Parts: sequence; C-alpha cells; structure tokens
Amino acid sequence: MIVLHTWTTPNGFKASIALEEMGLPYKVRPVNIGADEQFHPDFLKISPNNKIPAIVDEETGISVFETGAILVYLAEKTGKFLPASGEGRYKVLEWLNWQMGGLGPMFGQLGHFAVFAPEKVPYALNRYTNEAKRLLGVLETQLSKHAYVAGDDFTIADMAIYPWINTLRTFYQQEALLTDTPHIRAWFDKVGTRPAVQKGMTVGKTAT
Amino acid sequence: MIVLHTWTTPNGFKASIALEEMGLPYKVRPVNIGADEQFHPDFLKISPNNKIPAIVDEETGISVFETGAILVYLAEKTGKFLPASGEGRYKVLEWLNWQMGGLGPMFGQLGHFAVFAPEKVPYALNRYTNEAKRLLGVLETQLSKHAYVAGDDFTIADMAIYPWINTLRTFYQQEALLTDTPHIRAWFDKVGTRPAVQKGMTVGKTAT
Repeated sequence: MIVLHTWTTPNGFKASIALEEMGLPYKVRPVNIGADEQFHPDFLKISPNNKIPAIVDEETGISVFETGAILVYLAEKTGKFLPASGEGRYKVLEWLNWQMGGLGPMFGQLGHFAVFAPEKVPYALNRYTNEAKRLLGVLETQLSKHAYVAGDDFTIADMAIYPWINTLRTFYQQEALLTDTPHIRAWFDKVGTRPAVQKGMTVGKTAT
Repeated sequence: MIVLHTWTTPNGFKASIALEEMGLPYKVRPVNIGADEQFHPDFLKISPNNKIPAIVDEETGISVFETGAILVYLAEKTGKFLPASGEGRYKVLEWLNWQMGGLGPMFGQLGHFAVFAPEKVPYALNRYTNEAKRLLGVLETQLSKHAYVAGDDFTIADMAIYPWINTLRTFYQQEALLTDTPHIRAWFDKVGTRPAVQKGMTVGKTAT
C-alpha cells in the first residue's frame, strides 16, 4: 500500500492522478497547508522541503518527495506511463522536467502576483504573465504536432501538466491566456475525460 | 560522441560537469544567449523551450533538453552517479528534482531582482531572498547529516546544485546568504576540488 501525504493543490493532484491511473492501492493522509501541517516534524522526516505531496511505499519502505521523483518512482514500480528505455523514455523525462523546472514554478509566481500578493507589483505581474505566455506557446507548438505532451501516448508528463493548466484557468483567474491555444484546450478536454484523472482531481482533504 | 549545445550558465555547467565526471567524449557547440542564438530554428528543433543546454547523442540519435533529463540520460547511459534501483535511486531523484523545481528557479528569480531588473522591486527582492534562505536552510540541514546531497556518495544531484551555489555567491552577489551555512560551504569546497568539476566549470564559450 502507498501512503499519500497530500492536499488539494496542483502538485498534490499530480500524485493522486498517477496513483489512480496506475491502479495502485493507496491511502490518503491530508496535510492541511492552510494550518501549516507541512512543518510538523513527522512530515519533515519524509518531506524535508516542507512541501506536499510525499509518498511512503509500505511495501519497499521507500519514501519520496518532489513530484518529479514521485511520478518516476510510481512509473518504474508499475512499468506504466514511462518507457523503460529508448528515445520515448527521454521525451517523457524532458517534458516532465520542463513542467518541474519551468511551467510549475513560473505559473506559481504568476498566481502569487495575480491573486495572493498583499500589494500590487506591476513589474512582477508583467514578468510572470509574459513567461506564462511563452511557456504556453511552447506547449501549444508541441501539442500541435503530437497527441500528448511527450508524443503519441498519455504519460506522466501529461499528469504533471494537466493540474497546473487547470489551476491557471480557475484559481489563478488566467483563462484569457488560453484564448489562442486551441491545441492545449483540446488536449486539456481530452485528458479531462479520463476517469482516473477525474478521480485524482478530487483527492486531498479527506483521509482514506 | 555527445554534442553539447551550451553556454556559460549554471544550467550549462551541470551538463559539462556530468560529461567530464562520466568520462564521456563530447564536443561543445556554443549557443550565445547574449546574441539570442537559442532562438535559431536549428536549435529549437532539439530544445523547443529555447534554453541551453541540450545534448545530441550521435551514437543513439537521441536529443535531450532540460538538465534534469540530460543528467538522468547520461547517468543511465553510463551507469554512473545514479543507482539503477532501490532507495538510493529515489534519494538522488528527490534532490535532483528539488534543484530543478525549487533551488534553480527561485535562485534565478533572486538573481533577476538582485542584479538584472531595470527597476528596484522591493517586494519581489524580499520574496526571493526569503525563499533562497529557506532553500539554503533545507540544504544545510541535509548536508549536516550526509556527506553529499543525496547521501554518502557524490551523484548527479550534487552536479545539479553545485553550479547554482557558485552563481549565487558570485554573479548574483549573495555570498552573505551563506554566512550561517557551514555544511554547504564545506560541501561546496569539497566538490570544487574534483578535477572534473573544475574542468566542467570552464566549458561553454569555445567550440571543441
């Protein structure tokens, strides 16, 4: 059994989508980041960076934090959604790392300055709006050539990006940035029809 | 032979350090980001996110962008600096992803607001200074318990973090942030004695 320590954020949803898609049995342990539970010493033992999600695999005793590592761990455990070798493997890892190092952090900064910052900071809002547009342009070009982010197949790279596009549209109030990205919109709708994705997007606040 | 498309940035140095440490033959193709060469159509074919570095492995025909993917590709090609399985593998991937998703992007924002931004933006400078301090605190705690970032051994996680600590101290003028991090300073000095690291840190501007 996998223990998923999580909350209802885009990074949390990456892990719950992956567990659902891979059909792995798991139990949810909510970490209420609104109540600073991510700083609890027991949680820091498995997630020293004080961020959700983290997993503990009771079968192997291995704990993993950082979603890029969690998705690879689960994919290598099950043999699903990440080829074991060859070009396809590295296309998935490219786009997974692109999400980890670019789209996630930069969308996060845009969300901060668009929604959360206690003061208006025009320079920063402009900087991160422009960077989000650039990243969406890169993704739009990729999805104009391929059915999924890393090629012909649905992979952990799609699982990493989908919840962040959702958060951009909803919580961050940036739907307008997707006006001219028809391929992203079509991909988003297609991924959103997957029952495991739908289920994964509901996980976080209730212990199971 | 590996073709390394790069420039003298912390992300570029990650790849050149890895190639040197692994003893892989490679040739350098400089991409002058000061002259916008990262937008050249030939480069975008292998690096659609218009960032350096990217590699092309002439032996397999596989190209890889994003340093998190490049380091894993090279480690899996050589069987070095990333265990093939077990807990040690995922400890390396955790810290590699922590660098990719946290330390790299957030140090980058700090550098922007500390050095590059054409106007003073106190809110943003304060935000990224605090986040850099938090991240350095996480790394300091980890290095107070382990000889290297992911445990007892020098791995691709160290290669990913070293050039960013170097840039923080030098180009970003943030040496003061390392005043209270003796374990990071000792680790930095130790890693800096490795001949392959020293060589890797010189690569970028000259074609070979």
